[in-house]
Amino acid sequence: MTELTQMSLAEAARAVRARDVTAVELLDACLARIEQTEPAISAFASTQVAAAQTAAAELDAGEITGPLHGVPIALKDLFFTEGVPAEANCEALRGFVPTHDATVVGRLRAAGAVIVGKTNTHELAFGVSCPASRNPWDTRRSTGGSSGGSAAALAARQVFGALGTDTGGSVRIPSNCCGTTGIKTTRGAVPRDGVHLISWTYDTVGPMARSAEDCRILLEVISGASRADPYSGPEPLSDVRAPGELTLGVPTDGFFDGIDTDPQVRAVMDAAIEVVRTVVGNVAPADVPNSAEHAEIGLAIVVSEAAALLEGLRNEHDDLIGPEVREILGAGAEIPATALASALAQRVSFERACLDVFDDQDIDLIIAPVNPNQVVPHGAGELGGVPLIPATTQFTFPVNGAGLPAIALPGGFAADGLPIGFQLIGRPFAERTLAAVGEAFQRETDHHLRVPQL
Amino acid sequence: MTELTQMSLAEAARAVRARDVTAVELLDACLARIEQTEPAISAFASTQVAAAQTAAAELDAGEITGPLHGVPIALKDLFFTEGVPAEANCEALRGFVPTHDATVVGRLRAAGAVIVGKTNTHELAFGVSCPASRNPWDTRRSTGGSSGGSAAALAARQVFGALGTDTGGSVRIPSNCCGTTGIKTTRGAVPRDGVHLISWTYDTVGPMARSAEDCRILLEVISGASRADPYSGPEPLSDVRAPGELTLGVPTDGFFDGIDTDPQVRAVMDAAIEVVRTVVGNVAPADVPNSAEHAEIGLAIVVSEAAALLEGLRNEHDDLIGPEVREILGAGAEIPATALASALAQRVSFERACLDVFDDQDIDLIIAPVNPNQVVPHGAGELGGVPLIPATTQFTFPVNGAGLPAIALPGGFAADGLPIGFQLIGRPFAERTLAAVGEAFQRETDHHLRVPQL
Repeated sequence: MTELTQMSLAEAARAVRARDVTAVELLDACLARIEQTEPAISAFASTQVAAAQTAAAELDAGEITGPLHGVPIALKDLFFTEGVPAEANCEALRGFVPTHDATVVGRLRAAGAVIVGKTNTHELAFGVSCPASRNPWDTRRSTGGSSGGSAAALAARQVFGALGTDTGGSVRIPSNCCGTTGIKTTRGAVPRDGVHLISWTYDTVGPMARSAEDCRILLEVISGASRADPYSGPEPLSDVRAPGELTLGVPTDGFFDGIDTDPQVRAVMDAAIEVVRTVVGNVAPADVPNSAEHAEIGLAIVVSEAAALLEGLRNEHDDLIGPEVREILGAGAEIPATALASALAQRVSFERACLDVFDDQDIDLIIAPVNPNQVVPHGAGELGGVPLIPATTQFTFPVNGAGLPAIALPGGFAADGLPIGFQLIGRPFAERTLAAVGEAFQRETDHHLRVPQL
Repeated sequence: MTELTQMSLAEAARAVRARDVTAVELLDACLARIEQTEPAISAFASTQVAAAQTAAAELDAGEITGPLHGVPIALKDLFFTEGVPAEANCEALRGFVPTHDATVVGRLRAAGAVIVGKTNTHELAFGVSCPASRNPWDTRRSTGGSSGGSAAALAARQVFGALGTDTGGSVRIPSNCCGTTGIKTTRGAVPRDGVHLISWTYDTVGPMARSAEDCRILLEVISGASRADPYSGPEPLSDVRAPGELTLGVPTDGFFDGIDTDPQVRAVMDAAIEVVRTVVGNVAPADVPNSAEHAEIGLAIVVSEAAALLEGLRNEHDDLIGPEVREILGAGAEIPATALASALAQRVSFERACLDVFDDQDIDLIIAPVNPNQVVPHGAGELGGVPLIPATTQFTFPVNGAGLPAIALPGGFAADGLPIGFQLIGRPFAERTLAAVGEAFQRETDHHLRVPQL
């Protein structure tokens, strides 16, 4: 039944809807694939096989209800599902069992999704690796993080779609490292209640899958305001714009200043530009703020907010939080409010400067690398002597600071066979347009269709 | 020439435009009135008579340029005007002379306004009184604050319009105490560059005048995004809605819980409801969040932001800041970022709860008192043993926290002859509709036309 798992999410959903395959068959194929590949990649923190089988059987017995009817989906282990542990790979959360579903989980279920299990993450999602999981392209390499388990599960064809969260790159980086596709959503586009958060203003929930089309299908299900998350605004996603009407902005040199960008990463981006050029209406140079304008601001805000959000956990179980995260939270607790207030004010200026790229330069999309580096070894904690977060998030973290959406797309492979991606960044709430450009790109390329040998 | 100063701003502007009066005549009338009344009320920190005379003569010599052509205007001494001290009644700012105009000052000048002088404020605008000025209705009473000089100048018919700022009530409270009209604008509606700020997220610039119509004219001139203030958003003011289409929400009892509201203040509001009822389409009870839900949150944010914004001033000239403000800033510098981060998150929930009043209860306007109390004595620092800020801002400060616009309108007079007002609170960017309802109210009432005997 392996061939079933090779389908895209869109194909799988269509097959169930056409009754060409049952939800139970689809789930069984995924479970078989998980059994086969999981020893090598360890994508999951836990699976809920019996519950998934019950759900699939019930879906098969009923009417087709929604766009994900019978489609197996995985959730990063930050998301609350009723009665199932949500431990975020943190000892201090061991045994935490939510009594309700997150809003986005409820929306997935209402759309007919079958929740297969909870995927591994960096501890509390506060990092850019995922030590519990292995990269399906080379198990000696990092999956990227923090949503590494979700990306690994997708690359290994264990599930058709997954949810991740992105604070500074945590959807895009594992997508980049595992050759999958993911959308970092606009601040406020997707409700985050029932999700372990580290930042009120940087955390975003986003869809992950093997194609832009699949991400779009998930996005349509999970997006939209919820009263359960006051940060989820009433502003809906913008209507899709035709790629042919758009101008792609290619950042000028200042954008790359001070970032040690691997030549193969640049080459993938340059090749992607040539493909996107055939899809959009225009390509123009864009003067985009350099990440250095945001790095300290963003760090001060995220670390302060994390220390506030996790104050209770830290007070009760400081000894059960790993040393790396504990140190960050400890530093956050020492920051004065004046520094946070100043950082927040500077972020407003940074956000405005980023919006000006679109408004003043008539740009609709900005192309950029995801990571400046190739995929790091599994277990690496630094790169060139610099801790992994500052060394690898220069292109992703500022997008969170600006509150903008971005889609990470596979763009090629390095000489060592590991994937390299790129991202397209859009105006607030332009996710549908980003997905449309991604779909057009993926009609012209096959990087996203390559399958790791496991 | 006293009768010229009795005109409304709209009438004065029309008279100049019709060449019935010159800008110089209008200015001379105001200067005479200032000379006559200023000894009693001390509205101004400084006047710029020669510059105003030059400007008026130039305006008379030229074409009619804008809606304020030749109209004398005063500015709270927080606003930067090129070459003129902007000292905010603070010894630490003595001798501070800006080298450029604030954006809003430039807009006033471009519209033809004649800047007469800078009005007194509470030190750094961090308070709800204005010790340097006296209430024109009774010089033993407070003008309210912090924009007390602006309100006193308007009530005394010294100028036709003025600008104030409102962090927790500083436009509305002096309007309330002096029987004038003022608009607290939506967060982001009016740019604030070139203004001494104490809070990035609470400070708003607003028009003050003797009628809603006059405030609207000023508002049209000063509102709209500026690149000089990244907080001023691209969202324009909403189109005016016909009052007859609107539903007035009258807060139910929970809104007043814990607030010692003077019976005469309630009586003025109740009388205003009966008039507004004849103007709007519908009146309905509204469940509005109580100020207690916001008080601590708002205080933590404003005090943190003030400590950050004034850190330089404090480091250099702490001894030149008055003890009351120094103490507040010192407290702000001790707040941890975690507390500020939590307060900001709680504010998002509070904002959402306030928006829900409009969205879920089909309310367009909320009526409320401005101050719960009658006008306090000049020099009073407390009320019933409680410091003046917490004792008198329960109805105003939450509006700043929610980022909503509100118009303060004179509603009557207390037994002692001092004015009492009320406010109408609207959806974000509904200033034009608030002004329209205010204009309709003022067509039915004459409280705003009463003149203090000086």
